[in-house]
Amino acid sequence: MSPAHTSLDDLLNPKSIAIVGASDDKTRIGGRPVSHMIEQKFDGPVYPINPKRDRVQGLPAYPSLADIPGEIDFALIAVPAPLVADQVRMAGEKGAKTAMVFSSGFGEIGDDGMRMQEDLKRAGQEAGVRIIGPNCLGLFNSETRFYPTFSSTIDRATPVPGGISIASQSGAYGSHIYMASHSRGLGIRYWITTGNEADVNVAEVIKLLAEREDVHTIMAYAESIKDGDMLVDALETARDNRTPVIFMKVGRSAVGAAAASSHTASMAGEDAVYDAILRQYGAWRVKSTEEMLDVAYACRPRIYPAGRKLGLVTISGGAGVLMADAAEDYGLDVSPMPQGAQAELKSILPFASPSNPVDVTAQFFNDLSLIPRFTRMMLDSGGYDGLIGFWTSVAGSPHLGQPLLDYLTETMADYQDRLFLSVMLGPDEMCRKYDDAGFPNFEDPTRSIVAMAALMYFGEAFGKSARAVPALPAPADLGDGPLSEKGAKSVLAAAGLPMVEDRLATTAAEAEAIAAEIGGPLALKIASPDILHKTEVGGVKLGVVGGEEAGAAFTEIVASARAAMPTARIEGVILSPMIEGGVECILGARIDPVFGPVVLFGLGGVFTEVMKDVVFRRAPFGVDDAREMIERLKGVSVLKGARGQLPVDLDALAGAISNLSLFAAANGDRLESVEMNPLRALAKGCVALDALIEKKQES
Amino acid sequence: MSPAHTSLDDLLNPKSIAIVGASDDKTRIGGRPVSHMIEQKFDGPVYPINPKRDRVQGLPAYPSLADIPGEIDFALIAVPAPLVADQVRMAGEKGAKTAMVFSSGFGEIGDDGMRMQEDLKRAGQEAGVRIIGPNCLGLFNSETRFYPTFSSTIDRATPVPGGISIASQSGAYGSHIYMASHSRGLGIRYWITTGNEADVNVAEVIKLLAEREDVHTIMAYAESIKDGDMLVDALETARDNRTPVIFMKVGRSAVGAAAASSHTASMAGEDAVYDAILRQYGAWRVKSTEEMLDVAYACRPRIYPAGRKLGLVTISGGAGVLMADAAEDYGLDVSPMPQGAQAELKSILPFASPSNPVDVTAQFFNDLSLIPRFTRMMLDSGGYDGLIGFWTSVAGSPHLGQPLLDYLTETMADYQDRLFLSVMLGPDEMCRKYDDAGFPNFEDPTRSIVAMAALMYFGEAFGKSARAVPALPAPADLGDGPLSEKGAKSVLAAAGLPMVEDRLATTAAEAEAIAAEIGGPLALKIASPDILHKTEVGGVKLGVVGGEEAGAAFTEIVASARAAMPTARIEGVILSPMIEGGVECILGARIDPVFGPVVLFGLGGVFTEVMKDVVFRRAPFGVDDAREMIERLKGVSVLKGARGQLPVDLDALAGAISNLSLFAAANGDRLESVEMNPLRALAKGCVALDALIEKKQES
Repeated sequence: MSPAHTSLDDLLNPKSIAIVGASDDKTRIGGRPVSHMIEQKFDGPVYPINPKRDRVQGLPAYPSLADIPGEIDFALIAVPAPLVADQVRMAGEKGAKTAMVFSSGFGEIGDDGMRMQEDLKRAGQEAGVRIIGPNCLGLFNSETRFYPTFSSTIDRATPVPGGISIASQSGAYGSHIYMASHSRGLGIRYWITTGNEADVNVAEVIKLLAEREDVHTIMAYAESIKDGDMLVDALETARDNRTPVIFMKVGRSAVGAAAASSHTASMAGEDAVYDAILRQYGAWRVKSTEEMLDVAYACRPRIYPAGRKLGLVTISGGAGVLMADAAEDYGLDVSPMPQGAQAELKSILPFASPSNPVDVTAQFFNDLSLIPRFTRMMLDSGGYDGLIGFWTSVAGSPHLGQPLLDYLTETMADYQDRLFLSVMLGPDEMCRKYDDAGFPNFEDPTRSIVAMAALMYFGEAFGKSARAVPALPAPADLGDGPLSEKGAKSVLAAAGLPMVEDRLATTAAEAEAIAAEIGGPLALKIASPDILHKTEVGGVKLGVVGGEEAGAAFTEIVASARAAMPTARIEGVILSPMIEGGVECILGARIDPVFGPVVLFGLGGVFTEVMKDVVFRRAPFGVDDAREMIERLKGVSVLKGARGQLPVDLDALAGAISNLSLFAAANGDRLESVEMNPLRALAKGCVALDALIEKKQES
Repeated sequence: MSPAHTSLDDLLNPKSIAIVGASDDKTRIGGRPVSHMIEQKFDGPVYPINPKRDRVQGLPAYPSLADIPGEIDFALIAVPAPLVADQVRMAGEKGAKTAMVFSSGFGEIGDDGMRMQEDLKRAGQEAGVRIIGPNCLGLFNSETRFYPTFSSTIDRATPVPGGISIASQSGAYGSHIYMASHSRGLGIRYWITTGNEADVNVAEVIKLLAEREDVHTIMAYAESIKDGDMLVDALETARDNRTPVIFMKVGRSAVGAAAASSHTASMAGEDAVYDAILRQYGAWRVKSTEEMLDVAYACRPRIYPAGRKLGLVTISGGAGVLMADAAEDYGLDVSPMPQGAQAELKSILPFASPSNPVDVTAQFFNDLSLIPRFTRMMLDSGGYDGLIGFWTSVAGSPHLGQPLLDYLTETMADYQDRLFLSVMLGPDEMCRKYDDAGFPNFEDPTRSIVAMAALMYFGEAFGKSARAVPALPAPADLGDGPLSEKGAKSVLAAAGLPMVEDRLATTAAEAEAIAAEIGGPLALKIASPDILHKTEVGGVKLGVVGGEEAGAAFTEIVASARAAMPTARIEGVILSPMIEGGVECILGARIDPVFGPVVLFGLGGVFTEVMKDVVFRRAPFGVDDAREMIERLKGVSVLKGARGQLPVDLDALAGAISNLSLFAAANGDRLESVEMNPLRALAKGCVALDALIEKKQES
């Protein structure tokens, strides 16, 4: 099922194109791409296919693909759904490498349509033709003026080539993003919508874009991902090539997810997992189109700061406070200037606030040279990775805007790895001058902070070489049928997960003897492969002290479980020492329908259940990544000794998390989920008090 | 110390103005306002005061205020700080009601400046002159072309009158807000910056604006509030007059708060309290300037929906998903259409998504009349309080933009209480047409959701009549000196707070007897007015069972406390029954330096300490407000029976919270703080297990 290799050249740089269902009417779906290609002067033959006409919009038309003289590279198909598969086959015979299908009436209308979509996919595979769509709005390559799309936005806004490219599942929303980019003056090189994704999906498109040197920044929009591995590959490629991927994954909310799945007829997967994957592989997830455009715009200088230390220089104390607030929201480090440097700033300008934000006050208007002096000191002594200057409307003042720009240009030439953003209001021409000089600028200070945060995030992601992942263990022996708690514990113990000592008693007398041997307060739990929820059947007793009590508890537990589930196979009762202290955690793995084995970790109880404070990471990964995962918990301070407790053994915890990730990756094909709840993190080590493995249903 | 009454007319509509320190140079601080007033044709005499010149910028100049013929209404003062107070006195003698002081070098430079600022304030009080500033950038009234400001933005952007007004502590940032508004086409009527606020503060300005019929919307910026009662009064006035207040309070973060306090030299107060106050009195708090302008813009039709039920109508499924996600982020209700109505929509357009978002698909382009039909059905059957239509770039299409607007205008005329926002990209003229017809429009769908959320919030706030607050109790007898736990409990019990039963034992034998009498497991705690942190001195033992054990515990506790704090007065040991079950909460009150007595409530342990999930409300208030407070907790589900527990008695909890608010309000002048930690919320009732009252230090 692996698709034939496709290069972006096949998709976006065909030499010749046939349009099946071409219309003479420029406003119709089959007419618009013909019109776009003529008006934009696409440099290559365009063959309209229309059995009823000799000419279409002035071009010679052909009754069918077979009638075209010679070969074609690309077929655009806009005929009713039932006719599409045949056209794909014919396109293959004419040498086409790609067929793009505008036609709707496939997967999006239900089962019948889905069957037709499967037929279409097969036809493509058999004919050696990659398919984009069906039900897609098209694509464009603004460099070669190749416009196989029926979007009318092309008429209203002729694309300007640039380093940004767009990959979108949604045609209409993809157009919206394009239009918004255009009206912001952002040049778009490639624009590709994937529609129903019978074959080529948005992840593969991102991969193809990430491989291109002429693509500097990728904006992606998706409602669901069909191929998780492909997306990971795409994001890794982008990261290796230092190409920022700005990702809008919608369907975060309950209503949104329902709407997305009714819209695309595909399973959305869990949003928290998407979120973790995008973060894990260095894509910046946005919630709004505006943020997407802002970040893409700020990427233009292609400076991705090495750290997240932000310096703020301002001519308004208030703006400084506002920006410091926003920087904290985004986890940026607004450390103060060193004391010595502050004193030096004060000696230059006694009324300045020299800390950070650095406030040069209205004195700025009298002496612009304060800016380069202060800026150099912030970069040299403060060591900030990025700076934001708040200039408000001064750029609109002819005697300030240009000199300030000259100062900035001269200064920042000496600090080519530091990003400088401006906040200013002014005439478009002046703002564009700053932009062209490598100083992206924003009207709104908060938006400049968000853009800075994104670029610092990219800098961090690009600087990180992918960490070595320990070798996977051999597949575990999971036995036949369901695994009991004891079975799950021994499988996980073998995988390097620390398990509480437990002993199986098959009679009350055995329980008595074991209890006497272990000593101290004990936990007793029913042992049965058929009983997953032990508490609910009265199958658990905690804090049992002494042999006699243990014997009695055994009898009670077995009787209660038998009464509740008469057909369950009961192996006996497990006895374990009670482990007190430390912090209760949850550690688990699940097999995500999109991304395969993912590990989840969180603090127990209310943290997980009420506060939803759980972090995910795609398996497998090593201990360093596990440590980062722990640090992402909002409640991480609890593990580090908040509330007067001892800090727990984070190394042990990270080891356990990583080991579970290796186990999950090695056995993912046979698992549904693994859960250790609770896993108790202790001052030294950690230990799972319970374990549950759900195996995949045999199919 | 109560200031003389000032009307906005005195501030903003003077008949005559004197400018002390007027300069002939239009670019200087003392020259700009002269120039603004001349160029904008202020309709009244302007008297430049300059002892060195006969004329200033063509106007006859006077050597001093005393030399002006007749009286003046308003004095603008731009002379060195040490000379200002005298000028204020002279202005008073000439009949001025207001003096605005541009001069810096007052409170913002430290103690010496602060003393001068106090002198200035006194001079104003003695002369009967209200003072704006010092260190302020000025104000304007665009209607009367009154421009006493040295902001150069006036030259670059002549104000256009409108219903929006701006109150800002920061001059530079206030100018930025003004410029950004201007470039968005938002007309600003009044713009007032308050600077150091020696006399008139931003809260009073908001109050004055809120009283004006010609002010439809208020944008406010503040770093700290000097007079909490005045702010509450201002916000209540605005709410009563259905005037939205859009509030940017900066200094939320640690760095931001530090910068704000160094900037304004005043105490910032706790951000969570500001947040609660703004919510309590119906102001919408924004984090960015863009959001401030967006919301003000969306207020133009002055439709504040009665509820938060939002309908989305879209021509792109993807945009619908995106908007549903954002709506959930803002707590809006995106309920689906009723089933019957969905079926009806489907019968009109089989491929429509009829739930909500309602997706009319690209069929929209063929039949625009779908929009009014669908819209009516959504308003009639769906009952949505507001609608957002996603039209992307269609407004730019001449044959779609105008007809769609006509349809919307005709339809919405029948639903004057429902707000309709559009998301669209198009030429400015077309966007303005929508706007003028009462359909504010946004390029970015997320921003439209935020604006809708704000307007629904105002609708809710305006619809709420201020709830009756129960009468305050008489001041409590707090005794002399510090209150012991037992003393605090009895004071609070008398105030209607349920306290756990406790008994004081003064000897081990008494402890034995009391324990036998109460029965069950007990908590024993040292009783001493001098020991506030009992656990730290070994003064607490929990789960003590039996008389003998209680006697031993008594001896141990007393010995331990004596050893740790030899000078503490020890009254004995308190015995209470252990109360298990229910949910541990924290209920307290503190005297905020700005807003006086505020009550705080949260869930105990990690919720409060790690997750910072605590809600505040200004005292006093009744049980309905207390219920709302409880509902604002992120972890409220724990109280309602999450994690398999019984729901707690919310009425009892609300009663306790309200009672504490009455107590705090009645005794606030003698209190520092009150804390009941834990307060245990039970299935029936609630009970405080500990109580601490800190009284105000005698001064």
